[in-house]
Amino acid sequence: MQLTRFTDFGLRVLMYLAVAPRDVPATIPEIADRFAISRNHLVKVVHFMAQQGWIVTTRGKGGGLRLARPAAEINLGAVVRLLEPAHALIDCADPPCALRFGCRLKGVLDSALDAFYATLDAVTLADLMQEPTGSAIVRLHGRSPQPA
Amino acid sequence: MQLTRFTDFGLRVLMYLAVAPRDVPATIPEIADRFAISRNHLVKVVHFMAQQGWIVTTRGKGGGLRLARPAAEINLGAVVRLLEPAHALIDCADPPCALRFGCRLKGVLDSALDAFYATLDAVTLADLMQEPTGSAIVRLHGRSPQPA
Repeated sequence: MQLTRFTDFGLRVLMYLAVAPRDVPATIPEIADRFAISRNHLVKVVHFMAQQGWIVTTRGKGGGLRLARPAAEINLGAVVRLLEPAHALIDCADPPCALRFGCRLKGVLDSALDAFYATLDAVTLADLMQEPTGSAIVRLHGRSPQPA
Repeated sequence: MQLTRFTDFGLRVLMYLAVAPRDVPATIPEIADRFAISRNHLVKVVHFMAQQGWIVTTRGKGGGLRLARPAAEINLGAVVRLLEPAHALIDCADPPCALRFGCRLKGVLDSALDAFYATLDAVTLADLMQEPTGSAIVRLHGRSPQPA
């Protein structure tokens, strides 16, 4: 059981943007470089997160990315729920499971997933930025670009 | 976030075998037919579950599959932990994440996963067989094979 890369990268972007604002906003190429991840993949994640109202993107010279609201107002459970594409742990419909209309397993898995999200619901992006993570991200902002 | 097909099929096999013993044990072709899933895929799942000591397989005429112990002694959390290949929700190592030595996200996700498994740890295979699931599986045993 894993979160998708989409979610993973989305969370990294939010964490990267959660440090104090800089003179020049962070950009997609910069974040892709710092985490050594695909720029194209990141474009899609950023586009989605802008649509959700979590980040604001500005174009042109001096443009870039910033959080749309304070990190303390961005809830981790809400973010992961929206970034993740699947909302059930097993697929009872493809192929149609013979038990799908009378299955206790689905209810148990749904309860376990609720417990999972309840843990994340208690955490905000600001919580994630406590030490040592906050300092690690500040250092990451200052790091020279990686050789291509 | 989804469980693998491997886990999904493994759980279905255990549930199928958890009804009262029959004169002729259930077989892989029969279970593949009833759930309309791949026989080859099921062979791998059954082999793994036999290795784990959850089911016993007997070869030859009249051979087949049965649970190795009572359903009340098969814990859902333990089963899913072993069936699932990934033990972390995100992959911090490939490519190596720049934050991997100082990241609060990983700890939060691990806690959420613990909460997930704690829910499953409270459930046995016998619990899953309560109604309406028990009757649904008994009916499934009696169903004619599906046309190939």
